[in-house]
Amino acid sequence: MRLPRFLTPTTVVRAHCDLPCGVYDPAQARIEAESIKAICEKYQANNDPEFRTRALIIKEQRSELVKHHLWVLWTDYFKPNHFEKYPQLHGLFNEATKLAGGGGGAKASTDPAVAEKLLGKIEEISKIFWETKQA
Amino acid sequence: MRLPRFLTPTTVVRAHCDLPCGVYDPAQARIEAESIKAICEKYQANNDPEFRTRALIIKEQRSELVKHHLWVLWTDYFKPNHFEKYPQLHGLFNEATKLAGGGGGAKASTDPAVAEKLLGKIEEISKIFWETKQA
Amino acid sequence: MRLPRFLTPTTVVRAHCDLPCGVYDPAQARIEAESIKAICEKYQANNDPEFRTRALIIKEQRSELVKHHLWVLWTDYFKPNHFEKYPQLHGLFNEATKLAGGGGGAKASTDPAVAEKLLGKIEEISKIFWETKQA
Amino acid sequence: MRLPRFLTPTTVVRAHCDLPCGVYDPAQARIEAESIKAICEKYQANNDPEFRTRALIIKEQRSELVKHHLWVLWTDYFKPNHFEKYPQLHGLFNEATKLAGGGGGAKASTDPAVAEKLLGKIEEISKIFWETKQA
Amino acid sequence: MRLPRFLTPTTVVRAHCDLPCGVYDPAQARIEAESIKAICEKYQANNDPEFRTRALIIKEQRSELVKHHLWVLWTDYFKPNHFEKYPQLHGLFNEATKLAGGGGGAKASTDPAVAEKLLGKIEEISKIFWETKQA
Amino acid sequence: MRLPRFLTPTTVVRAHCDLPCGVYDPAQARIEAESIKAICEKYQANNDPEFRTRALIIKEQRSELVKHHLWVLWTDYFKPNHFEKYPQLHGLFNEATKLAGGGGGAKASTDPAVAEKLLGKIEEISKIFWETKQA
Ligand code: NI
Ligand code: NI
Ligand code: NI
Ligand code: NI
Ligand code: NI
Ligand code: NI
Repeated sequence: MRLPRFLTPTTVVRAHCDLPCGVYDPAQARIEAESIKAICEKYQANNDPEFRTRALIIKEQRSELVKHHLWVLWTDYFKPNHFEKYPQLHGLFNEATKLAGGGGGAKASTDPAVAEKLLGKIEEISKIFWETKQA
Repeated sequence: MRLPRFLTPTTVVRAHCDLPCGVYDPAQARIEAESIKAICEKYQANNDPEFRTRALIIKEQRSELVKHHLWVLWTDYFKPNHFEKYPQLHGLFNEATKLAGGGGGAKASTDPAVAEKLLGKIEEISKIFWETKQA
Repeated sequence: MRLPRFLTPTTVVRAHCDLPCGVYDPAQARIEAESIKAICEKYQANNDPEFRTRALIIKEQRSELVKHHLWVLWTDYFKPNHFEKYPQLHGLFNEATKLAGGGGGAKASTDPAVAEKLLGKIEEISKIFWETKQA
Repeated sequence: MRLPRFLTPTTVVRAHCDLPCGVYDPAQARIEAESIKAICEKYQANNDPEFRTRALIIKEQRSELVKHHLWVLWTDYFKPNHFEKYPQLHGLFNEATKLAGGGGGAKASTDPAVAEKLLGKIEEISKIFWETKQA
Repeated sequence: MRLPRFLTPTTVVRAHCDLPCGVYDPAQARIEAESIKAICEKYQANNDPEFRTRALIIKEQRSELVKHHLWVLWTDYFKPNHFEKYPQLHGLFNEATKLAGGGGGAKASTDPAVAEKLLGKIEEISKIFWETKQA
Repeated sequence: MRLPRFLTPTTVVRAHCDLPCGVYDPAQARIEAESIKAICEKYQANNDPEFRTRALIIKEQRSELVKHHLWVLWTDYFKPNHFEKYPQLHGLFNEATKLAGGGGGAKASTDPAVAEKLLGKIEEISKIFWETKQA
């Protein structure tokens, strides 16, 4: 069962800058990836060329944000001991950011399945992230 | 009790662009505000002038992001019927964005209490947001 | 009769940052909205797909700037006493920024009439702005 | 005598993107330069180190915007025949953008007199701009 | 014969900010222009409408970067004595930035020949740049 | 012996977007890192508080650009077979981007030696990059 978001305690800080402030949260990447998936679904359901062009413009930006948020986690949050404990972590981030980019990734595709796959990778990263926070 | 984030279902999408994709989430504003609070705490605990200058540079950016995420919710997510049902909503957003800005807001202050107050406003907005999502 | 711009005194400062510097000017939003209108007119007059795609890319950016400039006025320039004196102000800004966005707004439309309507809203805001400056 | 801004006709479009939409206006550069001047005045009147750091952060951004708006006019608005008719135009823009930058310019100085000098250059450019619009 | 890049000494600094740091390098503009040319070639070779829209989105950004890098060189690196020694320099920069923009420039065209012409102008600028560095 | 840059053939394209255009070049990261080093040297030689604050503002931006350019190479240019051939590549990029960031990196330090170390990492990456281009 999921508690409504406004009932979750706000004292557990997470997510990102480079002071660093110590606040990191994979939710930032996930929210953008969810947006990409929704954009792809709307794209498939709408043949209007103006709408489709706007969808591509916005998807490009959202995909870039996914890459950025993931890169920040990879470089700024994760430390050498994490990479030792989770040897798959480098590859996972590399695959996830590739999945958010051009080539066969979310930037170059309008298939919701690609966004879904990206969300799966972010979920894997998220799981490791929260394990390290509890350690 | 709070479930670890990676166990919460990802099908409930939320948060933000202007296609619109339909994904909105007050967590975006809250994460940045949590960062501001952490920056203020580190600022108060560190007298090094270089560190303090960096803290002010980054706090400026994070505060701007809070304003942006809130503005997006106010303009893009909330509809006329919401403003009717919650007559305090306009004022709440105006106060919250002011609290994230210059003057006496989080940009101009290094007092964690100001960031705390900002987080309180975002929590109020978040509560209304999730009520409207459930309606 | 309109005086050439270079003859108007430059001592009357107006427009925007969050120091705050105290300089605010609705002209910033209006110039971008005028650009949107011109883009829509050129779009309607030109069937070249490359031109049209570029027009949509640029209109997206200009619309975002309109929203940003209006949000800054709403949060940073206008104070509680203004909102008391002009009870329609919150709604006016909310409608204007919606008109600059997706849904039925200037981002989602290539109809010059939508841009014209947006310019009308900015003019209403501008009128109130200058009244408060003279008060 | 200056007419209130909201009474000036809005059909005379001016200012800037690269479609190009055909809308250009030196007011964009001038508003930012007025902000710089106001920032310098506030800086001189306030010894608080946090305020001063914020002033420098924001002045840096505003100066960059002045440079950008001027560069756009120089490259996008002015045409070969203008440069023939106004042989000083290249130098004027080069000096104005230098005055907005580092070295002895507005980025590197907190002296309102430097901002004032920058405003003077923008006024010179503005005068030529409006002459070419009437031609 | 061209030495592999990693063998070239790194002590010869060049390229850009406005401290100024003193590091300037026309390679920044050239790399973006090379990207534009490659984008045009891929555009011509690919009829997929999604790919073409993405190409136009990205070309717009890369062209803007070319303009920006050139403007920085023109305003920040080159000094009055350079403009005296190279009287064609103002015009060269104006033409090069126009060639990177709308109208008949690289933003508005998908013809690799336009990008090629832009690269030629950057090469001319680069040649003068390195002459002044050696002086 | 180093050939003047303008004599090197421009047909060997390199460097970066996500179409992808196929143009990648570690020089983009290196130029920004050289700027960081120069900024640190100027910082150490100048006690003026305004200059120092500006140096920190600009160094923050340049460091962010280094991180961005390196992330792009890591995700977009390098492919699975490269990571197999160069097993140290993941760690190298992670260390290099950490060195460009907060904590003990170039954002948080004004010591030219840190920038020098960052340049060394970029050189290592650059060497591998050019080897893979020749393969
Ligand atoms: Ni942070
Ligand atoms: Ni969205
Ligand atoms: Ni301001
Ligand atoms: Ni325009
Ligand atoms: Ni520099
Ligand atoms: Ni590229």
